[in-house]
Amino acid sequence: MPVRHQDSLPAEEVRAGKRTTRQVLIGPEEGPNFALRRFIMEPGGGMPLHTNTVEHEQYVLRGSATVRIGGETHHVKAGDVVFIPAGVPHDYTADDGAEPFEFLCVVPNREDVISLVDEPAC
Amino acid sequence: MPVRHQDSLPAEEVRAGKRTTRQVLIGPEEGPNFALRRFIMEPGGGMPLHTNTVEHEQYVLRGSATVRIGGETHHVKAGDVVFIPAGVPHDYTADDGAEPFEFLCVVPNREDVISLVDEPAC
Repeated sequence: MPVRHQDSLPAEEVRAGKRTTRQVLIGPEEGPNFALRRFIMEPGGGMPLHTNTVEHEQYVLRGSATVRIGGETHHVKAGDVVFIPAGVPHDYTADDGAEPFEFLCVVPNREDVISLVDEPAC
Repeated sequence: MPVRHQDSLPAEEVRAGKRTTRQVLIGPEEGPNFALRRFIMEPGGGMPLHTNTVEHEQYVLRGSATVRIGGETHHVKAGDVVFIPAGVPHDYTADDGAEPFEFLCVVPNREDVISLVDEPAC
């Protein structure tokens, strides 16, 4: 089916995340080069510091969050565009509030190794 | 810059289109494998029937339109996901109304030859 609504697609919990779900909107069995996914992070949820072996091209649909990318801290909101190069540590913390933080994330169809980054506990 | 707002990026008119603009949100000089673009079609605007040599992975942000893909007609709206394989004829007609039809379109970083398709005038 060339057209479908996002609400008709299954969402799975992201195990390494906190109150975070992921939907594959267009997966590798359909798109030959890259996959389009949608993430929803409930207020206060997010993903800990990690790296991926593939780059991310992202578009924020709704809500806002603090995103750290390679040691820099950004506050992102709807309409923001985010590029995370392969191998760069990053994390997400959805803002507290009524609205979830929702974004699209495009990745190439290549094996993605995800590595959590230890942070000094002080 | 890893983060930028869409409103800070230039928009160019799409010559083959009607009341249609395109923004490159993440281009080939930054993303190594694919480009993220945003199209805005004013009510009644759109693109005539054409083919591309690259596939499109699309996400509808706002508004609604009639989209023909490979001989099938679809009515698409915000939250819809659209996959257009390489080489398949397609067109867009944004619905009349107050709201523009706005969507993201991801394409691989490869030369894209765009060919307009003649339609029988009868």
